[in-house]
Amino acid sequence: MILELADIRIQSGREAEFEEAAKRGLDMVLSKAKGFQKYEVRRSIESPERYMLLIHWDTLEDHTVGFRTSPAYAQWRDIVGPYFAQAPFVEHFEFCAGS
Amino acid sequence: MILELADIRIQSGREAEFEEAAKRGLDMVLSKAKGFQKYEVRRSIESPERYMLLIHWDTLEDHTVGFRTSPAYAQWRDIVGPYFAQAPFVEHFEFCAGS
Repeated sequence: MILELADIRIQSGREAEFEEAAKRGLDMVLSKAKGFQKYEVRRSIESPERYMLLIHWDTLEDHTVGFRTSPAYAQWRDIVGPYFAQAPFVEHFEFCAGS
Repeated sequence: MILELADIRIQSGREAEFEEAAKRGLDMVLSKAKGFQKYEVRRSIESPERYMLLIHWDTLEDHTVGFRTSPAYAQWRDIVGPYFAQAPFVEHFEFCAGS
């Protein structure tokens, strides 16, 4: 199971709009993708314009190949892209240890 | 419930040592702290020297005040600090939405 972390900066003052759009895009588009497991949207306390999307996928390729080459990717970006202050920074993380 | 994300860069070649130390420090020290709920250690696929600690706390202050002003904080840093390539970047995130 792979964790995608998308580190997102939102245009100041548009945080509420982004939160609504992100939830809609995740529920309506991303969560239908092959290999999608679950998501969380979280907002930084120290940097209120910063959000982190935590998305769990079955495999890395389910996101980087399956989702990103599908029409759903453009749909998702159309929904949330207007609120970005800059391009998101995305990496994928494998599990090492946990409690 | 607050999610602490600690973005950590490890000295090249010391990743296995860090992983062992982080698990030991989390299991022996951090998980005994008041308000600690659970943790994950995850390693970036794109940047193998990059790790993310995901630590759930009851409240922000359980981490920033309770833990950081306790002797346990120095113990934790003694265990994992030797492997850091630079100071970790830590922020706290509140829940907005999820599936």
